[in-house]
Amino acid sequence: MPSNFKNRRWVLVSYPETLPEEKNFRLDIEPQVQDLKENEILVQASYLSVDPYMRGRISPAKGYTPGVELEGLMPAGGVGEIIESRSSQFAAGDQVVLENFGWQEYTVAEADVANKVDTNIAPIQSYLSYLGMPGLTAYFGLFEVANVKPQDCVVVSAASGAVGQMVGQLAKAHGCRVIAIASSNQKINWCKEIGYDEGINYKEVENLSDELRAICPDGVDVYFDNTGGVINDAIMENLSLNARIAICGVVSLADKIGKPDIGPRYFRQILVARARVQGFLVFDFIDCYPEARSHIRNLISDSNFKFKEDIADGIESMASSFIQLLKSQNFGKKLIKI
Amino acid sequence: MPSNFKNRRWVLVSYPETLPEEKNFRLDIEPQVQDLKENEILVQASYLSVDPYMRGRISPAKGYTPGVELEGLMPAGGVGEIIESRSSQFAAGDQVVLENFGWQEYTVAEADVANKVDTNIAPIQSYLSYLGMPGLTAYFGLFEVANVKPQDCVVVSAASGAVGQMVGQLAKAHGCRVIAIASSNQKINWCKEIGYDEGINYKEVENLSDELRAICPDGVDVYFDNTGGVINDAIMENLSLNARIAICGVVSLADKIGKPDIGPRYFRQILVARARVQGFLVFDFIDCYPEARSHIRNLISDSNFKFKEDIADGIESMASSFIQLLKSQNFGKKLIKI
Repeated sequence: MPSNFKNRRWVLVSYPETLPEEKNFRLDIEPQVQDLKENEILVQASYLSVDPYMRGRISPAKGYTPGVELEGLMPAGGVGEIIESRSSQFAAGDQVVLENFGWQEYTVAEADVANKVDTNIAPIQSYLSYLGMPGLTAYFGLFEVANVKPQDCVVVSAASGAVGQMVGQLAKAHGCRVIAIASSNQKINWCKEIGYDEGINYKEVENLSDELRAICPDGVDVYFDNTGGVINDAIMENLSLNARIAICGVVSLADKIGKPDIGPRYFRQILVARARVQGFLVFDFIDCYPEARSHIRNLISDSNFKFKEDIADGIESMASSFIQLLKSQNFGKKLIKI
Repeated sequence: MPSNFKNRRWVLVSYPETLPEEKNFRLDIEPQVQDLKENEILVQASYLSVDPYMRGRISPAKGYTPGVELEGLMPAGGVGEIIESRSSQFAAGDQVVLENFGWQEYTVAEADVANKVDTNIAPIQSYLSYLGMPGLTAYFGLFEVANVKPQDCVVVSAASGAVGQMVGQLAKAHGCRVIAIASSNQKINWCKEIGYDEGINYKEVENLSDELRAICPDGVDVYFDNTGGVINDAIMENLSLNARIAICGVVSLADKIGKPDIGPRYFRQILVARARVQGFLVFDFIDCYPEARSHIRNLISDSNFKFKEDIADGIESMASSFIQLLKSQNFGKKLIKI
């Protein structure tokens, strides 16, 4: 292990009450990374992933995984190069992806949670986006949860985000009509470039429900929900018979986690449409990752496949990038290049 | 056809804006029932069914079937005796059930929408409750929509109603722990008598969510929803992992159909629990009626089977009985004896 290197890492200082601010985090310098035990590897990050789910982890409210403790390392997926290995599975120089890298420049991990990546298929950071969790999330939400069928009218919120870009392209390739909802005209234009049939900038329409009705006169068959909130309201007013709603994320609630989200309830609409609303988490489908990866590799081998990344530089930009993401100020998959 | 008989029938006079009142309906006397055409039957009602779904039919808001027009006959299921038949399938004197009898004493129907009933199995009016739509609704909601499993903690709203009594007994026989929610101690006592393990009178508890948490500390696995509204709120705060919610009815919204139902939204809770919320309608399962009926006949052959009816007398009591039902003032399956 190089003796002169220092690890910089972000810890949680306080739980945000509404939207996180930089003061909720602190960038620490760790003078010495711990020594490797048998079967461990030391990895230097080349890219870290910034994702909306991190908001759920920094709240005392119940989440699907335990939250981050105060003074604890913030969680993030990461890709990078092995600096040192005490595992027979890996050698120094190997490129790997780790779901649990953390907001830091280096990590020591058990070898069995690392996966080698093949950078001949796609650039290394793709294993944090379309070849990683966001790609798998899009696949399972669409095919397993929403049970999408060709000809379905599929609406996607946060459509230009990491998951949304994949949902749109997967659904389009499956023969669906695909509608993007996003927060700027620039994002909508990008969505159309990658294959979305229509797009709505929800910040510029007077009435999202009316707009949606005009674009989907026969109703929404599948809604891939990355946001929650008022966008969902508009969908619920436009359900087709047997509509399926896959709840993937609720980033619109980033400023009120643990507090009630007051708005219209839609039990009657769900009943009348005999609709199905289902929350899901990609890890529930771990047994089916191989089939999903094969499907995605097939999709990206098409010359029309496109994917936008929004890359910030250096570990010091992690907290501000995360806050930007929660404010929809990113454009494409948010990554930090280390 | 007896020449001296008159048919009395209720028509819709105006759409109620909140809870229906008697003035929204009118009892007409029809001096002469139409002559039968080939393949038609004339049936004299012995019982008519009073059901919450009728509220959805008398609103200009979108429902799962077209609404009743002004001056149109109100819909109701009915059982009775054939007075005259021009169908080879039926003879005068046969006992039949008709889903579409209407709020009236006599009906002329196509023979193929009538079904003969076997009063050796159960009294004729049972074909409007546990051997009819409410029984089938309970069965499909529980087994097909909620995919109930033995050991599930199953919560049922309007638990002493026509559907609720069946859900409780079907779930109990399936090995579940079954919790009743109802609007009086008398109803809760009855629920326990028919096999519910626990019961909550939601009108008497300070905080339904806390009460539910005390009774279901590991969360609610299955919620059979007959009401919507604040009862659902309490369930949504107590979902177990992979909870399933079958939305069967929204009677709590009887006073605000077509208007927004404002309250907490639960997208984050659905996501965290990876829960599934699904609306359903019994008619969607028509191909599976035979298996459901056989299951139900098996249940009712058990000597422990119990079922409470709340019977009013005479066609003139139809409107007031319907209004009572919407106010939870019935106790058991509401029927009108003609």
